[in-house]
Amino acid sequence: MEQFDVIAANSIFEYVKPDIQEVERLIRLQGLDSHPDLGKALDVLLSSGGKRLRPTITILAGKSLKADPKRILTMAASIELLHTATLVHDDLIDASLLRRGSPTLNSQWSAGATVLTGDFLFASAARLSSDSTSIEALKLFSQTLRTIVNGEISQMFTSRCKPGMDEYYNRIYAKTASLFETSAAVAGIIAEAGKQITESLSTFGREIGMAFQIVDDILDFTGDENVMGKPKGSDLRQGLITLPAQLFFEKFPTHPLVKKVLETGCLDDKNDIGQMVSDILKSDVIEQSYNIANDFIQKGNDALSPLPDNREKHMLISLAQSQVRRNF
Amino acid sequence: MEQFDVIAANSIFEYVKPDIQEVERLIRLQGLDSHPDLGKALDVLLSSGGKRLRPTITILAGKSLKADPKRILTMAASIELLHTATLVHDDLIDASLLRRGSPTLNSQWSAGATVLTGDFLFASAARLSSDSTSIEALKLFSQTLRTIVNGEISQMFTSRCKPGMDEYYNRIYAKTASLFETSAAVAGIIAEAGKQITESLSTFGREIGMAFQIVDDILDFTGDENVMGKPKGSDLRQGLITLPAQLFFEKFPTHPLVKKVLETGCLDDKNDIGQMVSDILKSDVIEQSYNIANDFIQKGNDALSPLPDNREKHMLISLAQSQVRRNF
Repeated sequence: MEQFDVIAANSIFEYVKPDIQEVERLIRLQGLDSHPDLGKALDVLLSSGGKRLRPTITILAGKSLKADPKRILTMAASIELLHTATLVHDDLIDASLLRRGSPTLNSQWSAGATVLTGDFLFASAARLSSDSTSIEALKLFSQTLRTIVNGEISQMFTSRCKPGMDEYYNRIYAKTASLFETSAAVAGIIAEAGKQITESLSTFGREIGMAFQIVDDILDFTGDENVMGKPKGSDLRQGLITLPAQLFFEKFPTHPLVKKVLETGCLDDKNDIGQMVSDILKSDVIEQSYNIANDFIQKGNDALSPLPDNREKHMLISLAQSQVRRNF
Repeated sequence: MEQFDVIAANSIFEYVKPDIQEVERLIRLQGLDSHPDLGKALDVLLSSGGKRLRPTITILAGKSLKADPKRILTMAASIELLHTATLVHDDLIDASLLRRGSPTLNSQWSAGATVLTGDFLFASAARLSSDSTSIEALKLFSQTLRTIVNGEISQMFTSRCKPGMDEYYNRIYAKTASLFETSAAVAGIIAEAGKQITESLSTFGREIGMAFQIVDDILDFTGDENVMGKPKGSDLRQGLITLPAQLFFEKFPTHPLVKKVLETGCLDDKNDIGQMVSDILKSDVIEQSYNIANDFIQKGNDALSPLPDNREKHMLISLAQSQVRRNF
């Protein structure tokens, strides 16, 4: 990888702020010609935070390639809206009451209204995406949604508490990395930057998306419960074996609780789960997980070498690196 | 309207049969690269019948305009899939156990799996639609989904058992006519037939879509309960005032049950509902409703006059007329 000064994440977010504001305006516009409660739902969803990482990637990649800003911002809005739509349905399905500390839509609305709001967001994302006037971007967009949903269905129909490294990587690709991949690739498509550049961006997005989800899964063990808004090891409590647990299982196959999971399935006893979380934290699997996340980041950043060497490319690289250091 | 021999609905469906089979093949293909249970769900949804009216309209309009058959069939499949996706979520929201006499997906799967299957169908419809390689068709497509969902949300947030002719027409436009409109219009777009022809097709689709829903609403009162698979007046039982009831309310404002609804809202008593259904059937509002449906059909068929005068155009007109005579 080329050498350059790391750019602080804050100054990156500051740099794209006007663009992100435009993205948010485009999203809010979708509520204008619809039922007032849909507009309200959009406001709530937008104001409940989120780092807007996906549109930030699209915007930086677009700027780096001098793509048409209007089409880039439209596509960035479409991607954030698609992401939001999947969260609305996910929270409903998981019966989650809070997201980023704010009440979820399903905690306040009926299941029916929540399903329909998600559908409306999907439709609005598709409409915005068609405004970007690139059939290729739209194909990618709809295929990504298929990948995400197919991943969730597969997870739903697969037995819980079943370790498996391939399954884990497939799951986080479908769940997270596929949309990061698309967020980056669409900039290459809109810029008409050619196959090599677009594939470089795909790889960048995919690899940092994998890292992003791994860090999320690490923080589920290490994060401050007050900041995260959920107890440590909540994935494990839901029967989801993420990377740290996966590594722990491989490393300590004779650990009594590991044997219990392998033999009988999920740990239902709260004390057992607490014990396993504490043993995972005491082991070096967290550090190993960070190393794996860093490898993904490295591969993603390396993939960017065919891109023109400009400020926005350095921002993409720095942004990727900052994701491993985040604590929420 | 031009004069011509009416073509029997059966021979129309026979004429498009190979095309409809190709549409079904394209839809089934969507299940191939996904979780096996999604493929199974697609099979169940396809085999549970349905008249394929929407793709039939797209196919006939496409043939009439000599549009590229491959792109027409792709778009027709996309439209049928979008329709199916909305039904999957509707049945879940309404907790319906049967559709066309077959068990609904939500009667057999968890709510979560049903939400996700609908999402997968939306995504697959969007992917197929992007294969038709027309941005304009895609815009129409996503806008139609927004209209349908917005209509459902509006209905959900509006008090039930509230008569209103404008509300009724707005509701059936969003629920049904908007997708008929798009089914017809996309053929004009794909054929690059120009604004006048495409708008003619839009009008045709919209008007016969309105008629189609009115006939559905009439059959809810008059249909054979064994054929329909639901009791007479099921809309009224759910607090939905459709055209026949609407006309009855306007004509007999002093009818004791009409007064009861206007003063206190929904009829909850089963005997009251039975009485109102029977009084509606005895009055002439059913005939009046058919007349209104016929007016829509007439307007729709008249709109086709700019189209080339060929066999497929006559089939579209005959198909529209046959919808008023159907009994299920």
